[in-house]
Amino acid sequence: MPELRQDPATKQWVILATERAKRPHDFSRPPVQVSLPEYKNDCPFCPGNESMTPPETMAYRKGGAANGPGWWVRAFPNKFSALVPEGSLSRKEEEGMFRKMDGVGQHEVIVECPQHNQCIPLMADKQVEEIILSYRERYLALREDPRFKVIIIFKNHGPRAGTSLEHPHSQLVAMPIVPLTIRYRFEKAAGHFDDEGTCVYCDILREGLNLRTRLVLETDRFAAFHPFASRAPFETWIIPKAHNASFGSISMDEAKEFAYVLKKTLGKLYKGLNNPDYNYIVHTAPIKDEQEEYFHWHLQVLPRLVTPAGFELGTGMFINVALPEETAAFIRNVPD
Amino acid sequence: MPELRQDPATKQWVILATERAKRPHDFSRPPVQVSLPEYKNDCPFCPGNESMTPPETMAYRKGGAANGPGWWVRAFPNKFSALVPEGSLSRKEEEGMFRKMDGVGQHEVIVECPQHNQCIPLMADKQVEEIILSYRERYLALREDPRFKVIIIFKNHGPRAGTSLEHPHSQLVAMPIVPLTIRYRFEKAAGHFDDEGTCVYCDILREGLNLRTRLVLETDRFAAFHPFASRAPFETWIIPKAHNASFGSISMDEAKEFAYVLKKTLGKLYKGLNNPDYNYIVHTAPIKDEQEEYFHWHLQVLPRLVTPAGFELGTGMFINVALPEETAAFIRNVPD
Repeated sequence: MPELRQDPATKQWVILATERAKRPHDFSRPPVQVSLPEYKNDCPFCPGNESMTPPETMAYRKGGAANGPGWWVRAFPNKFSALVPEGSLSRKEEEGMFRKMDGVGQHEVIVECPQHNQCIPLMADKQVEEIILSYRERYLALREDPRFKVIIIFKNHGPRAGTSLEHPHSQLVAMPIVPLTIRYRFEKAAGHFDDEGTCVYCDILREGLNLRTRLVLETDRFAAFHPFASRAPFETWIIPKAHNASFGSISMDEAKEFAYVLKKTLGKLYKGLNNPDYNYIVHTAPIKDEQEEYFHWHLQVLPRLVTPAGFELGTGMFINVALPEETAAFIRNVPD
Repeated sequence: MPELRQDPATKQWVILATERAKRPHDFSRPPVQVSLPEYKNDCPFCPGNESMTPPETMAYRKGGAANGPGWWVRAFPNKFSALVPEGSLSRKEEEGMFRKMDGVGQHEVIVECPQHNQCIPLMADKQVEEIILSYRERYLALREDPRFKVIIIFKNHGPRAGTSLEHPHSQLVAMPIVPLTIRYRFEKAAGHFDDEGTCVYCDILREGLNLRTRLVLETDRFAAFHPFASRAPFETWIIPKAHNASFGSISMDEAKEFAYVLKKTLGKLYKGLNNPDYNYIVHTAPIKDEQEEYFHWHLQVLPRLVTPAGFELGTGMFINVALPEETAAFIRNVPD
């Protein structure tokens, strides 16, 4: 019997399609022998090729000049930015009933390491910490711009996740509006706070730690788990135990531990499923709401193992062919 | 300069990323020589293989027994149904704060023609009419079940659109709940009616016909156009000129003309872009709201030419790398 499950945070329903269910190991892809070079001379993200990118907004390097090699993490505006820092914020009515505005914002690439052929699960712990610190640094810098309403940090890994660039990188977009889906998630959390007097993410975390069936790993300050209403096989949330609405409030100690949990979590997917394509997204409060008590920042990993089709596009509702209890048990048992 | 555009119907913003814009013809894929057979003996949708599917709920055939060959359109429950007709509608609280319910519903496949290697753009007009009539017939049959709140009709064409089955088919899902995205679209239309006293889709249609820059084709009863805030390159809406909230209200004459417009519209995509993968979805009012004046049924075609990535998954907001004015002009000029 298929099951409908509701995400307590968004109130969205998901179909757990047990009739077409697959076992967790069915999602592992066949091992592929991809042997990437450590350096590619036509890769704009490789050291030495800095002139192929816009000037950097931030880099971690010991000495050496800006926009030259010697860095270990480097950020710069996306050459093909979805949004750009110039333009007006006014909403122009135009073409009759249709409303548009300039695409004002900032869209940055964060190159995660100098090596072309590296990936987070295989990096040194220290390097992953530096990536998280770069997220924090760019978040804190861009939040000072009064035009920006919310900052999205995300990563696309692999072609099925929408990237064709192999060199490991993340992206950050500072937005001049709050997208409806984000506002909606925020309002639902406020509604839960009104009804229950608690943060819905704190509640989800507490119940998840209590049940433990969907838990992947737990540290002093974080938990990683497969959510009750997982939208896709192996969807994973990493959530800090300390209640904070904004990723920008992450402390240095938290950042270090977050890096550890992220590396471990992605590492288990990497080993358990043979380096699947995935997206991850840092969900954080809009800038003006960073102090609200009802939101709670977290990271969502969405492996791209199945293709959303007409049903998902038409309804916004997902059909998931794997049970999170089973996928979490599988992933928990992947050795480090 | 990139541009943000708002869909007047949903209030969702879309980023028109002109910095990374492509020309319409860049989306055409290289011609591929796929030579599919007219019949495959292991295809459950081919005539003669009816025993490989659940018993039919409807078929158009001249004589001959149910569940045998001789049909030209045939519907039956999906063998791997996302939802099934048995079970309870009560929402079970369980595992503490988490809510779930039985996956009650009906999930049907509609095989569009006997030939394995056919597709809508190449079918006889009459055959496409029969497909639309089968949608109508199954919609009207399933709407009688008081457990069903909304009926979704959709089609997935090609692997990038989430199907691996070659034989042309559509799907229909009768749902025991109204998915949030559908409820939300409905509420936004009601809000427009409250503010303006008009149906937002009637307004969009009128303005589109007035401007004509994004129009693909127009008949007495329908218009096909690329929407102002297109979420993806070549997104196309087909909308009836007569205001009706429900697809179920389509008349025989309308059905015939709708079939013609659908065939033409898909045909232009087929020729202009070399048979792209796509999804289409019939957006229709929830069953209890079929008479509401503020919703207006329509069909949305979403070609799957680009892969949504972390930004889209995290924000629900799309980055579109093609201007609908340009794609519509390109498609208008594709010869029939």
